[in-house]
Amino acid sequence: MVTAGLIHILDIIGTVVFALSGAVVGVRRRMDLFGILVLATVTAVVGGIIRDVVIGAIPPASVKDWHNPAIAVAAGLVAFFWHPWIDKLRSPVLLFDALGLGIFAVTGAQKALEYAITPASAAVLGMITGIGGGMVRDVLTAEVPSVLREDLYAVAALAGALVVVVGNALGAPVALTLLPGVALCFFLRLMAIYRGWRMPFTRGADDRSRP
Amino acid sequence: MVTAGLIHILDIIGTVVFALSGAVVGVRRRMDLFGILVLATVTAVVGGIIRDVVIGAIPPASVKDWHNPAIAVAAGLVAFFWHPWIDKLRSPVLLFDALGLGIFAVTGAQKALEYAITPASAAVLGMITGIGGGMVRDVLTAEVPSVLREDLYAVAALAGALVVVVGNALGAPVALTLLPGVALCFFLRLMAIYRGWRMPFTRGADDRSRP
Amino acid sequence: MVTAGLIHILDIIGTVVFALSGAVVGVRRRMDLFGILVLATVTAVVGGIIRDVVIGAIPPASVKDWHNPAIAVAAGLVAFFWHPWIDKLRSPVLLFDALGLGIFAVTGAQKALEYAITPASAAVLGMITGIGGGMVRDVLTAEVPSVLREDLYAVAALAGALVVVVGNALGAPVALTLLPGVALCFFLRLMAIYRGWRMPFTRGADDRSRP
Repeated sequence: MVTAGLIHILDIIGTVVFALSGAVVGVRRRMDLFGILVLATVTAVVGGIIRDVVIGAIPPASVKDWHNPAIAVAAGLVAFFWHPWIDKLRSPVLLFDALGLGIFAVTGAQKALEYAITPASAAVLGMITGIGGGMVRDVLTAEVPSVLREDLYAVAALAGALVVVVGNALGAPVALTLLPGVALCFFLRLMAIYRGWRMPFTRGADDRSRP
Repeated sequence: MVTAGLIHILDIIGTVVFALSGAVVGVRRRMDLFGILVLATVTAVVGGIIRDVVIGAIPPASVKDWHNPAIAVAAGLVAFFWHPWIDKLRSPVLLFDALGLGIFAVTGAQKALEYAITPASAAVLGMITGIGGGMVRDVLTAEVPSVLREDLYAVAALAGALVVVVGNALGAPVALTLLPGVALCFFLRLMAIYRGWRMPFTRGADDRSRP
Repeated sequence: MVTAGLIHILDIIGTVVFALSGAVVGVRRRMDLFGILVLATVTAVVGGIIRDVVIGAIPPASVKDWHNPAIAVAAGLVAFFWHPWIDKLRSPVLLFDALGLGIFAVTGAQKALEYAITPASAAVLGMITGIGGGMVRDVLTAEVPSVLREDLYAVAALAGALVVVVGNALGAPVALTLLPGVALCFFLRLMAIYRGWRMPFTRGADDRSRP
């Protein structure tokens, strides 16, 4: 069935790009090969695992089926052996990451809906599927997750997920809401990266939480 | 039924105060609006989600039902727009936090008991429900969770949870153990904050784990 | 039955050594008694809890049954009162940690297989059972998990888990694969600690991810 096939293809693309982003961080942190592969895999699959555990899809897809972890490891190996080449592609990697964010957000929201999660929660779970892997990647490298600071990152994921959730509420066929959701998230990230679109900040905020 | 109503009211109060504490940290870290709302929501709901996943209450209450996340987001918005006003209330915020800690600890222990978790584990799960949100909030901001250092924080939560667990073992009606549990936790936090009550430390310990 | 008894004994040994490792970190960070006990318990039980949640063994063994947490707390108390004595045993502690790593990796993989997880995932879950506690311990103390940098740590756990998974695929009795798995993991850690065995690193990698 076309929708399932489309979701599967999107899932593979998202796994590859997120695994690459995790592996590149590992390379920069001078981790050994295995640390890099762990970071690549975690970045690629944790978002989906959190979603699956929370909606009751146990064991999670990435545990029941070894394809996604295998794809992530393969992508991590590529990053390990060709990282100078990947560094040159920084800008493309940012675009791929924006693409992966949108993909996981919409497929995550769609899967939540299939598990009879309420629309509001399905949208949030879609967002978490998109941002979860990156958050864990940053926590494991002792950094404040960029999603908590970066412009329009989580917002873009949420917007993409909402397209699927709203489309579902309006009875639109899934296949027709997935790509527009990905496109909206991707567009918002592009605007944040190249046009500096951002969310409002508080005035006069300073960092008093550090001693 | 009065107990359910009482638990529900306590739950809302706890969600609001924890969301405020998370949002205030986000404001101080100069996060954008969305980062602040994410941090507020995580602080308010993660403790309960961990508890629900572990006891098998899947999907967790905060996922199945959007009320708590919505309350947390609303509280986050309040903190975003009126944070200078909230900063003036630092001491009240500390008190609210102590209140929220006690509330989540007792309601968490009570829910664990309802899921036939053994008393010892129910008390620990109550404690985790109380401290979990704050721990994740600190981890996401790359800080050592204050619960691991702060005086009588986790201990106060555990004490409050134990009141519910022991009362349950003695066959006391739930409604009669909840408020005393909250009160004990709240009292212990007050003593820690204003009287410096603390747990023993090791003598001559130093930080050799940092290079 | 001999296998169950063997797994139970190994489980207790692993819990003790990991709780000690967590408690020692807490002592060095000058945490109070309770923070130390929390860190000891988390280090000892979180790996297994993650595994149990993911494979659907809910509530997790460490929640359903209070023995493991109690053992971890007891070990934490020992570390709190005798930490100078334990510091003298640094090298033995490293060996105990290597032993615990192997134990949790093989018992984790075995339990995953019992829950009909596919071999590849069972091996990974065994590895996670072994390294999970230590990763959370490091994240809670705001450090990059040593497993992501340390030589042959996760690799050793994976190798031990693979012995059980491969043995299972070949129809070997469980009791005959557990100890060899532990031994292989232990041996690899010894070689990493005393002979400097390590995984390959990328050349010319530097840390550009820090500002």
